[in-house]
Order: sequence, then C-alpha cells, then structure tokens
Amino acid sequence: MATRTVDLRSDTVTKPTEAMRAAMATAEVDDDVFGADPTAVTAVKLQSEVAKMMGKEAGLFVPSGTMGNLISVLVHCDVRGSEVILGNNSHIHIYENGGIATIGGVHPRPVKNNEDGMMDIDLIEDAIRDPRGELVYPTTRLICLENSHGNTGGRCLPVEYIDRVGELAKKHGLKLHIDGARIFNASVALGIPVDRLVQAADSVSVCLSKGIGAPVGSVIVGSETFITKARRLRKTLGGGMRQVGVICAAALVALQENLVKFEGDHKNAKVLAEGLNQIKGLRVNVAAVETNIIFFDIVEGSKISGEKLYKHLVERGVFVMLEGPSRMRIVLHHQISSSDVQYTLSCFQQAFSGLQEENGN
Amino acid sequence: MATRTVDLRSDTVTKPTEAMRAAMATAEVDDDVFGADPTAVTAVKLQSEVAKMMGKEAGLFVPSGTMGNLISVLVHCDVRGSEVILGNNSHIHIYENGGIATIGGVHPRPVKNNEDGMMDIDLIEDAIRDPRGELVYPTTRLICLENSHGNTGGRCLPVEYIDRVGELAKKHGLKLHIDGARIFNASVALGIPVDRLVQAADSVSVCLSKGIGAPVGSVIVGSETFITKARRLRKTLGGGMRQVGVICAAALVALQENLVKFEGDHKNAKVLAEGLNQIKGLRVNVAAVETNIIFFDIVEGSKISGEKLYKHLVERGVFVMLEGPSRMRIVLHHQISSSDVQYTLSCFQQAFSGLQEENGN
Amino acid sequence: MATRTVDLRSDTVTKPTEAMRAAMATAEVDDDVFGADPTAVTAVKLQSEVAKMMGKEAGLFVPSGTMGNLISVLVHCDVRGSEVILGNNSHIHIYENGGIATIGGVHPRPVKNNEDGMMDIDLIEDAIRDPRGELVYPTTRLICLENSHGNTGGRCLPVEYIDRVGELAKKHGLKLHIDGARIFNASVALGIPVDRLVQAADSVSVCLSKGIGAPVGSVIVGSETFITKARRLRKTLGGGMRQVGVICAAALVALQENLVKFEGDHKNAKVLAEGLNQIKGLRVNVAAVETNIIFFDIVEGSKISGEKLYKHLVERGVFVMLEGPSRMRIVLHHQISSSDVQYTLSCFQQAFSGLQEENGN
Amino acid sequence: MATRTVDLRSDTVTKPTEAMRAAMATAEVDDDVFGADPTAVTAVKLQSEVAKMMGKEAGLFVPSGTMGNLISVLVHCDVRGSEVILGNNSHIHIYENGGIATIGGVHPRPVKNNEDGMMDIDLIEDAIRDPRGELVYPTTRLICLENSHGNTGGRCLPVEYIDRVGELAKKHGLKLHIDGARIFNASVALGIPVDRLVQAADSVSVCLSKGIGAPVGSVIVGSETFITKARRLRKTLGGGMRQVGVICAAALVALQENLVKFEGDHKNAKVLAEGLNQIKGLRVNVAAVETNIIFFDIVEGSKISGEKLYKHLVERGVFVMLEGPSRMRIVLHHQISSSDVQYTLSCFQQAFSGLQEENGN
Repeated sequence: MATRTVDLRSDTVTKPTEAMRAAMATAEVDDDVFGADPTAVTAVKLQSEVAKMMGKEAGLFVPSGTMGNLISVLVHCDVRGSEVILGNNSHIHIYENGGIATIGGVHPRPVKNNEDGMMDIDLIEDAIRDPRGELVYPTTRLICLENSHGNTGGRCLPVEYIDRVGELAKKHGLKLHIDGARIFNASVALGIPVDRLVQAADSVSVCLSKGIGAPVGSVIVGSETFITKARRLRKTLGGGMRQVGVICAAALVALQENLVKFEGDHKNAKVLAEGLNQIKGLRVNVAAVETNIIFFDIVEGSKISGEKLYKHLVERGVFVMLEGPSRMRIVLHHQISSSDVQYTLSCFQQAFSGLQEENGN
Repeated sequence: MATRTVDLRSDTVTKPTEAMRAAMATAEVDDDVFGADPTAVTAVKLQSEVAKMMGKEAGLFVPSGTMGNLISVLVHCDVRGSEVILGNNSHIHIYENGGIATIGGVHPRPVKNNEDGMMDIDLIEDAIRDPRGELVYPTTRLICLENSHGNTGGRCLPVEYIDRVGELAKKHGLKLHIDGARIFNASVALGIPVDRLVQAADSVSVCLSKGIGAPVGSVIVGSETFITKARRLRKTLGGGMRQVGVICAAALVALQENLVKFEGDHKNAKVLAEGLNQIKGLRVNVAAVETNIIFFDIVEGSKISGEKLYKHLVERGVFVMLEGPSRMRIVLHHQISSSDVQYTLSCFQQAFSGLQEENGN
Repeated sequence: MATRTVDLRSDTVTKPTEAMRAAMATAEVDDDVFGADPTAVTAVKLQSEVAKMMGKEAGLFVPSGTMGNLISVLVHCDVRGSEVILGNNSHIHIYENGGIATIGGVHPRPVKNNEDGMMDIDLIEDAIRDPRGELVYPTTRLICLENSHGNTGGRCLPVEYIDRVGELAKKHGLKLHIDGARIFNASVALGIPVDRLVQAADSVSVCLSKGIGAPVGSVIVGSETFITKARRLRKTLGGGMRQVGVICAAALVALQENLVKFEGDHKNAKVLAEGLNQIKGLRVNVAAVETNIIFFDIVEGSKISGEKLYKHLVERGVFVMLEGPSRMRIVLHHQISSSDVQYTLSCFQQAFSGLQEENGN
Repeated sequence: MATRTVDLRSDTVTKPTEAMRAAMATAEVDDDVFGADPTAVTAVKLQSEVAKMMGKEAGLFVPSGTMGNLISVLVHCDVRGSEVILGNNSHIHIYENGGIATIGGVHPRPVKNNEDGMMDIDLIEDAIRDPRGELVYPTTRLICLENSHGNTGGRCLPVEYIDRVGELAKKHGLKLHIDGARIFNASVALGIPVDRLVQAADSVSVCLSKGIGAPVGSVIVGSETFITKARRLRKTLGGGMRQVGVICAAALVALQENLVKFEGDHKNAKVLAEGLNQIKGLRVNVAAVETNIIFFDIVEGSKISGEKLYKHLVERGVFVMLEGPSRMRIVLHHQISSSDVQYTLSCFQQAFSGLQEENGN
C-alpha cells in the first residue's frame, strides 16, 4: 500500500479544508425554500457574491454543475419545440445523460468542436434554423459554449471569440449560455477578468466543487428574470434544499482561499506536462496545456499498456483517469503541491525505465 | 420586535444543532459521484443506515424530498406511456410542480384522498387500467401513498391499510411507492416499527430535513436494482453531489438525536391543539391531530381575520402558515419546547381576548 | 350467421356513402404540407367551412379526434410546467393514452365530472393554481370541457354553463378548449347554434368521422395564431398529410348529408332507450338520453349475464359495446334506421323472454 | 401564365390517378381503430402487402413518413434515457421538427453523413455509449440509416454497408431502423430486391406518397411485437384513423401502377442532370445522381441569381425547390414525362442564353 496519495483524477476530488469546515460549523442558516431575511442567509450571500464576480444580476446555488446546465438550457428553451446548438464534444452533450432531451425535451444540434474547444462561427451560423422553415424545423433558441473546454484538455475560449458568438446570438434573437464549470481557470489563464470573459453570455454555470474546492455545488448566474425561472425549475427537479447555508458557507471560504492558487495549479500542470513529454514512451501536446488539465498518450509501440501503467501508478498512490487503452487524463488542483508533481513524475519515469530494464533482460 | 421566536411554519425550519455542526466539521468525505471505499464514506454510511432502518436493501441520498419522489416515480415508470395512481390531495400531486408529468412524462391518475389521507381501496382498484384496453389507455405501473399524510394534517395510514394496498399492487403487477417524508412520525404515532410499516412498499422516500432536523436532504430506499436506476436518474436530474459527506454526517447525528423526540413533538401538538380549540373563535379537530401537524380555522363570524391574527402573532415572534383567509397550519418539531407551546397559546389567547376587549368598547 | 347487421358500437363505424365516394373520386388535391392556391384545395375549403360554422377564424384538418385534442392542449400549454384542468371522466383523461402527459409533458388536474358531464364551477375555480405559489405549483393554463360528454352518455353542457366557465377562464388568464367530438349532437339537442355554443372557447376539436359520418378525420378551430401553432405541431406529431383533399372531399359531403339527420338519430335513441327500459331485466335512465348515446344496465338478480346477452345479440347481427359485466353502450348514427331500432329492440326482448322460458322449464 | 405545368419540387406532389380514385370509390372499409374481419379490410391488406414486400412480419399504415419515423424511434427507445445514433444530415435530424426529442424525449447523437449519405462505420461505433459509463451517459438503443438519402441527392446505401451496420448494431444489442421513405428508389437503382436491402433492419418506414404516388401515407414494417407497440403509439399520437381503407385502396393501386416506373424516373433524372450540366452557368455532379433527385448549383460569377432563375422557371410553369441563394433541387416522379424533361431543359437553356444576350448588349 502506498504511503502517499496523489489524486489527479479530477479537480472534483478536493476535500474541504479546515477553514471550510469551520465555516460550515458556524454558518447562519435558514430554510432556503421558504426564503428569509436575505441579508442574513449564507446561501443568499454566496449567490450574490458569485453573481457580482460574474457581472450578472443574480445567482442561484444548485447541487451540481449538471443541474446548473440543465436548468439553464431548460429556462432558455422553455417552449416546446426548442433546439440548442452546442459542441459535439461538450460536457452537456457527452456527460450529462442527455438530460436536456430525455428530461427536458430540448433537441440538441451539435456542431463540431475543434481541438481548441471552439466551434467554427460559420458552422454555428449554418446550424441556426431559418424561422421560415418552422413547419419542419425546431426553433433554435440557445447556443452553448464551454470555457475552459474539458474534453479538449481545458483549452480556453478567448474573449474575442465569445464576444463574436454573443453577437451572432443577438443577431438571431438567441440566448448564449456558458458552461463555466472551470471559467475561473480560463479567466486566470487568459488574464481576462471573469466578468469581462462572460460579458456576452445570458447565463453562466460555475462549479464550486472543482478547482475552487468547495465540497458541493454550483452557482448559475444571469438576469433576475432568468434566476426567477431557474429557482422554480430547481424546485421541480428537486434541487431546492433547506438549510443549505451550511454548504454555501464552505463555498464562500473556498472562493476566498483557492482562486488565488489557480495560477500555481496551471504552472504545476505545465511542469508535469513537460516532464511527462520528456519520458520516452509518452506523448503530451504541451502547448495545449493551457490550464489545469493534461491529456496524454502512450506512444504506439510502447511495451507498457495503459492498464499496466495505471496499476503501476495506483500501487504508488498516484490516481489518474484512464480515458482509453493508451490515453490518460490528469487534473491539477489546490491540493496537489509541487512536491506531489515531482513525486508523480518520478512514478511515471520509474514505470518506463523499469520497463526498459525488463526489456533489457 | 419580538424577543422570542417560535417558528411553527413547518418542520423544515429546524436548524442544525451543535452536534450536527461538529459532525460536519469532521466528516470523512470522498467524491460521491466517482464512488470510493464504501466503508469510509459518510454518505454510504447514511444510506445503508436508513436502508436498514426501513428494512430495504439499499438507499440513496438525494438533495430533497421532491427529488426523492420524482426519482422514485420515474424509476418505477421508466417506460413511455406509464400512469401512476396517487392521492388527489397528495404532496406529489399538489406541491411538486407537476414534475412527474412536466419533467418525467408520467400520467397521473388521481384518486380522492379521504379526510384521513386514505384513498378507498375500491377506488384505487377501479383506477387501475385494464391491460386489454391498452390501445387507448396508458399503462398503470405504480401506486403512491403518503404517510403521514401532510395535507390532511399529518394523519397516519395504518399498517393494515398499506398492506392491503400492497397486495392490490402485487395482484396487478404494480409497484408501491410511499412518500414517507414524515414516515417516522407515522411510525411513532402508530406504535409500529418503521420497517414493518413500509414492508409492502417497493420504495420509500424519507425526509431528513423535516422532523429529523438534518439541514438538508432525503434518502430513498428500495431494492438494489431500484437504487442502481435511481442513482443514474439522480445524476441526470443534477442531484449527484461531490463531497456530500459533510451534510450526510449531520443527518447521521440528527437520526441519533431527534427520533427519540418525536413522541414529545406529538404530545406538544396535542396540547397545543387542545389549547387552541378552547379559544372561542378557533376550531380545531383535535381528534385528527395524530402527529405533529395542526390545521385549524377561525370560526365564521369571528371578528378577527386570518391576516390580522397572523400579524398579531408575527409581532410576538410566533410564525405559523396562513393556509387560507381563515385557515392556519402549525407544525411542531424538536426545536419547539413545552414552554414555546405555552407562549404560543398565550399569544393566541391574547389575540382573541384583546379582540373581545376591542369589541367591548 | 345473421342476415342483417345493426352496428351500434359507436358512431365511428359509419361507412362512406355513395356521394362521399364520388366526391373522393373527383376531389381537387394539392400537396397540403407545401400549401398551395388556397381557393382550389379541398382541405382548405373544408377547414374554412368548419371554422365558419364554429364562428372561429381558422381551422385545421387532423387525422383523428385524439390528435385534435392533443394538439389543442399542447398549443395552449406550450411552456414547460403547464397544468390543464379537465374532467376526471373526460375522453382526454381516460381514453387518449395519457398523451398530454406522456407525449406532451402537460400535468393534468382532473376535477370530478358529475353525472351530467359538468364539473362544479366552484371545484374548477378551486383547482386553478394560485400564481403566488408558483415555486411549488405548475401553472394552470387551460380548462377543457367535453360537449356532448361521451362517458356520461352523451349529456349536453348548456350554453350558460360554458359561458360561465369561459368567464372564469378569462378572469384567470386561462384558455378554454372544448372537446367537441360530438358538438353538433349537443347543438341539435340543445337547439343552440353551434357557433353560439362554443363562443366562449378558444379552441374546439370537431370529429368528422363520428355522427357526421366522414371516413376519417377531425377539424380543430380557433384563432389564426392558434392554428398556425397547431399546423406546426401537427407536422411534429406526423399528422401532416399530402393529397389529403381526397378525404376532405368526403367530409364536405358528409357535413352536407348528415347533420340534418342528427335530430332523427336522437329520436331513435329515445325510442330505443324507452323500449329497452320497458324490458324487465334492463334499466335505462331514459331522461339522461339527450343525444345519440344510451348506457344501460342489466338489473341485479337478472339471470342473463352481459356476456351472454352480448353473444345473443351478435348472433342476430346486433353489435353493441360491453362496458362492464352488466353494463352496455349503444350509439345511434345516420346508418341506423327506425326499422333497425325496432329489430334491435325485438332481439333484446327475445333474449329476456327466451330467458324466462328457459327459466320456466 | 404558363400553359404547361411541370412540378419538380418533390415526389410528394403527385396526384392520384384515375385508377386510384376508382379504388377509393369502391374500397371496402371498416373502423380501423376497432379492428375487424382482417381479410376484408383494405388497410389490413395494404399493411400485410407492404410487410411481405419488405420481408418483415407485420406492417402499420400511418398518416405520414414523419409519424412513421417518430413511432419507430420511440418504440425502439421506449425507456427513458435512450439515445439514437443518426446522420447529422438525415431527414429525422433536420426536417422532422426535432420531434424525437421534443415529443419523445430521445437524445439524438448525430454522426457525420458523408457526401454519399453514409456515416463511417468507425464513427458509428465510436458514438455507441459504453454501458459502463451509464452514470453519465444515456443508453444507446438505436441506429438510424436513410436509404436513399435525400439530403445528399438521393444517394443509395449499398446492401453491404447496411449489413455491416446491422452487424454492428447486433454486436452492441442495438436496433437498426431504416428511414426508407424512398427505399424503392434505392432498390431499383442498386438492382437489389427491397427485402434483401432491408434485411438487417429491425424496422423500416416506407413512404407511399412520394415516388409511389399514393395520395397519403406511409407504412412501417417490423416484427409483430414492434407493430403491436407501434399501433398503440400511433393512437397516442393521434394517427389512428377510422375508415382509412379509402386511402389505403389508393395506395394499393399506386404500388401496382408506379413501382414499375421508377427506372424511367431515374433515367429521366440522368438525362436532365446531364442536360443541366451542359448549360454554361450550372454545375451538376452527374455521377451523384443515382435515383430521382438532382441537386445543382449556379456557378459562381454567373450573372443570374437563384431567385431570378426561379422566377424565370415559374413563369414558364416549371417548379423547382430553391435550396439556397444559388442552389436548387429537382425531383423526378411518375407524372413527369420525357417531354416534360425536354421542356424543362429548354426553359433552363433559355434562361442562360437569354442572359448572355442581355449581357451581350
């Protein structure tokens, strides 16, 4: 059994810090479904704080990023017969059980995500349905972006791109939603204030339990009208919670504690990516590592399989995600130190050098 | 401003105790979506503890009772074209946004709830669709009961009744779900162990943030197969949470601390109901107060309106629910003491005697 | 094998007349999905003719009454989270597969149908959701009436009643839909012009293949806006048909030919009901036979079972609907003559006198 | 006003022939919803005839191809949380209002259609969800093909390709549906019997009102079990029609009359495509014209716009579809003669030569 654990599977694995736990233990709470004196209640505080950071009128705490996206899509597409344009490699299309269709009856119109997470603006425009064809077409009501874009390795959509998509949406009377599960990573990496980065969006969902490190929850932000509808839909889906202030308190601490560490997480990712890329037998597109996520491949012809490498790492307390037979993912976060990075690298090196020795015999 | 607060609006308003807060601060957590070493994780512990109490194979923590019911109905009715028989005055039909239809596409077939919360067994049987008529009929797949039954004032469904409904369900190949938001109140009031009380049910949702007093959440219980499907649907709806152990820890403490107090809550309810009924101008069906809920009416011809009475109480720190122009609801819970009950009674008495004085002038 | 057939199962069993067949053979048609020169096309002619008869702006031909009701409910309830108030014994709630929920995600809120097919206006008003409760309530958007009311034996809703429900709907910002599958029967029986009878309604579905005797189809009528939305939804559901003029031509003839015969159908129903009621062993509520439908029961203690009676009739070429072990339904229509009525009565009489003879042995 | 009309907008514009009209006028009918003596009823005859042609157990008449596809997808995906793999340029994804999601709650997973209408088999396999990921993935239940493939110009999927997709489906426990709106065109063009061509499919929808020339309707075919479920869903959607035999009679004649003419339609298409391609200013991919559909473009730099050309044609009684600013579609069918083809060509030539004259001045 390994004496050290380095959990790189995701930034969702972070555990609450002492300060967060202390905050939970002393949080002022009230029944969040009934509503209450708004100034006193921790949930309300968290919601308005995140809304303010994002430059939007209002916010709503939800149990998960999946619910945040689901509610956002359903609010924008509240009329039967709606279609949403989204990336064919986006989290909503791939990893959320198809809920927008299976639960919400919204028709997805996926557009190809390039390697940088962007969809060509021309392709987006082509996908917008001509309202004159409404006898046979659903009605396009929404475009969704994802920033940073998880499945392409945490790539960042530049603010100019988002603005252009926003203009396109406006021109066609559509809404723009950003799945901003890791929007703060994008903001830090791009050096653009987060409120500026999402300026063109009608709604954003922000995950608090990824890099930010809160134990539970996401916040969605948008106009007052959007949030009023979202609150009702949250109740319908069963996301209305009672004395939720106890977890919101932890999230408020997390925002204070961990946003400042994102730059370090990205630096660690870069160091680790470069180190892995120097190992003969691994290939990392180092230039593509813009934030805290690294995808990498075991090069063809290597004698070690993904599964064997995975096992080797687990035995040493290093946990990664095995994405395919020879593809892995690593995600950095505030509970991974520089020393963890070095240790991880050494475990990888050992796997491949050990292998060469074996081969040498 | 009142110096004392007695919040009788609902048993959802309870605030976490010191012991719960301490538990949150020290809870062992892990990413509940990924799953983890089952013995270590607080959520898993809570789920299996509640399942065991209810005599079912497995349990699942969900953010709210509404999600618990929604998931349960949708799992039992997972095929398009399903119908559920439920009370026309049940929580699911009245207070959950119609989610089973608007989100889940399940057709509700409401049957009249009598004043005691029961539906006549004959009427239930009549409502079951004849499979030979399936060209024009949806398929009945589920019967839902609610115990204790909130909208009729916390009335308890006797175990014999539930067993008979269970037999009926079995005879017709249907499932039986119990909305057991306040099932422990029913168990205590009936003097029947809770696992016996729900023996006939295929699934039960139990609220932890009502009388039990946990800050957040419900647990649904059923067979392993049911829970496997429920877990997936929870993810679809966005109810999958990460380090949810922090709130599960509080719930575990709440189960320890507060179940023993239910008998006291019911006694307080009885005392309060009798006291209110002695006030000239109020009418309470004291015999109907079986658990912790009291509905009562201002008698016709009384000079005080519901609104005025409500305001009088609020000024004295006593919060109740105004259900109609002259109808109110009170719910007892572990944070209401005998002294609170006496204080509440005195506030009511004052309202009516003060009124008589006014009238006397 | 019987030499004569009297098919009283429903008024849907009528077969196209020679004139209808001739009309089909010469109908001017065009692609109804593309649309075309509106004056030339039979479908357009039929739609505007029915709309005019009903006093509404526009009409739409649909393949069935079920689709007519489904489209109407879905157009009025086009926003997620909608609720419709309708009779608990209405065709939509009982005989349309629960499609408004299972396909349309609309939450039904059934209100008790009295024996005359009406719902108490107070109960309707009680069932309208208070918009202030929208956090937990679906939004009431529609009230549905059915006239004449099939499941209560073709009872007619008086125009004053409909007007009052219409006022209630307006007061609360709701729409009113009338399932007018047999609205012409009601109009004839009440002696009220059909456009006056449905004046308060925002939409009406009218069946052409019941008493009117067309081979296929219904028409829904309402405002231009309603019909525009309905046309799109008809395409979504797959009810858009190409050279549909061939069947619309038959319907136009049917309207000409058969509406004038409704008074005779109702007279036949009365004669038959009275005749059946005089048979010892049968009980008919003759006063309740207002249009072309007769429900009747074999009295308890009678020696003949429903099934046996049914078989006796079938052997003599008389087809009725067996609704329960001792309950039957008969529906008159333009292809049932006075002579058929007398023949039917004699078959019934024979069954019961034959029975007495058998018993006599 | 033109004295001659050549309607090339679609093969849905064909009008019933004298023989079809005669058949309608004499069709034996019965109430198709009740069901009846199966040998006597025209609908039953049509259904079993088409089923036999396609080599499947049973068939069902539906009002439109859209309903045929919708029912098929929904029957195969009857459990909540289903996903269907289909072409991103398929009729179902583009032209059916998104009904499978907006009405059926099925999540579409589009895969790129190549220019020949095929999807790469590797890409299909990649799109099949790993059942181990079911916590975040919907469940793949169905693959849809379209043959011939309309939006790529009536291209034919070879039987080997279909067989391979069928094997893939079987390997993963999926169903295969073929949108065979124009399956007979593919069969004729490929020289493969239609039952062999759809052998690998679990269900096929066949349009009768396209090239076959019946006024209304489609038939879906599959196993007895599939058709039983389809019949019920047809009722739910409102596609159950009463004396539908009148239109089925026309369809039976159409099958007799027009299938033999498909080879001529394809020949006409080839001649027309080649003729158009010889016009300087037009570009047709002649090799891609495999059946009865021609897509063609006005070459860049041409002085005539699509709209102007369209108007020029309309004035001469020639109707085509304007698909984009400089893109048109023509569809051949049994009511277009060789002479119509020559006339059409001459109208096009005139447009461009006239143009050159104008340019010449």
